[in-house]
Amino acid sequence: MATRYLTAKLAQQIDEELMSTAGAFSLDQLMELAGLACAQTLATVYKKEKYPRVLVCCGPGNQGGDGLVAARHLGMFGYQPTIYMPKPGSKDIYKRLQLQCDNMQIPTIPPSAELQPLQGALKSTDVILDAIFGFSFQPPIRAPFDNALPLLGKSGLPIVSVDIPSGWNVEKGNDLGVGLEPDVLISLTAPKEGVRLFKGRHFLGGRFVSKTLENKFGLNLPVYPDFAQIVELPQVEEEGSSQKL
Amino acid sequence: MATRYLTAKLAQQIDEELMSTAGAFSLDQLMELAGLACAQTLATVYKKEKYPRVLVCCGPGNQGGDGLVAARHLGMFGYQPTIYMPKPGSKDIYKRLQLQCDNMQIPTIPPSAELQPLQGALKSTDVILDAIFGFSFQPPIRAPFDNALPLLGKSGLPIVSVDIPSGWNVEKGNDLGVGLEPDVLISLTAPKEGVRLFKGRHFLGGRFVSKTLENKFGLNLPVYPDFAQIVELPQVEEEGSSQKL
Repeated sequence: MATRYLTAKLAQQIDEELMSTAGAFSLDQLMELAGLACAQTLATVYKKEKYPRVLVCCGPGNQGGDGLVAARHLGMFGYQPTIYMPKPGSKDIYKRLQLQCDNMQIPTIPPSAELQPLQGALKSTDVILDAIFGFSFQPPIRAPFDNALPLLGKSGLPIVSVDIPSGWNVEKGNDLGVGLEPDVLISLTAPKEGVRLFKGRHFLGGRFVSKTLENKFGLNLPVYPDFAQIVELPQVEEEGSSQKL
Repeated sequence: MATRYLTAKLAQQIDEELMSTAGAFSLDQLMELAGLACAQTLATVYKKEKYPRVLVCCGPGNQGGDGLVAARHLGMFGYQPTIYMPKPGSKDIYKRLQLQCDNMQIPTIPPSAELQPLQGALKSTDVILDAIFGFSFQPPIRAPFDNALPLLGKSGLPIVSVDIPSGWNVEKGNDLGVGLEPDVLISLTAPKEGVRLFKGRHFLGGRFVSKTLENKFGLNLPVYPDFAQIVELPQVEEEGSSQKL
């Protein structure tokens, strides 16, 4: 059976279940494994020898938290991450994750409403990790991200998006045409409806869903290899060939 | 320069530093990465096709917590873990980790002062993960572990020990001769003094030590490959050849 693609509501439900009594996970645990999976996906596709400088773009929510964890692991892997985080999250966990990056001497572009610092950073970046908006994103795109997204998109740099490319509708995809068009996507827990037709390399991470939970929601997750924390999903067929289905 | 082997006191200091303001890590995060490293080490050496049934032996402290995290990941990897935890820890995190294993249908041998349940479990075990005592262990070995350790040792099953083989002095090794003699060891953060002459396969996990912290304590950690969470240490030379040094 095919892997299930989640609506925003279902993704929210599964997240809640993982952290409820039935799952018993802490956000710290889930975010650590999710962020590790993001870092490993980027490292799988973009080797540090050729793409050492990663601009990790973080939104103010849990997606941004995943980004901060990924930035730290990328630093451990030998990359040179820089954090773009114009609106730091207010949650305690977010602040701790930031501090962990500070302690690792990972630089953060000073928060600013201006775009110049981001423009400057893009000039010394080899690959972008997009952890701005997640599955709870609702349009419109607010400042400063409304101006930042086009800058990232036009940079010509390879982009790895976390869970849902920033600016996309979680269920309808890039329906407004204002979202990023990443080369690589790392879905977390299970892929979302909006990325069903995503044509780039598509990975799944978040290897913490029990069989009970998987069956309850009919997820039909792909099989992860050995002890890996990520699994690559099969390529979506091109439009021409999909007509045969 | 050679990797530094830690005294019990130094190991304690580094742990505290990781969780202090200077490190900012939560125990949840560190334990998740440590337990994952333990599971990945076992899976590297003992393939699930040949060694599917793992008896995860957990003490009442943080070492036991690492074991519970490892049991969960082993379950995700497709092993059939069973938990031996005669004295469950009382900390909140320990209880949550237990619940996570329960939710994954990982069986736990009912706590008992008797040895029969453990004896029974050993008959249907392929490999043992020893997460009973860690670097804060002080002799004497208390019941029921005083009787359980010899049972595990005499089982003839392969043993993977976490951080320090149970029953060993953290600095002097198996000086009383009552400790386990594991085939594989997974040291966490940095190896301890007592395992300097350990002859089996020796791995290191806990890839969360910043360069600043590493330099402060002069750890000279080995280089982890790519984005792996474990690294195998060079084999200790045999006594005969070490005389040449």
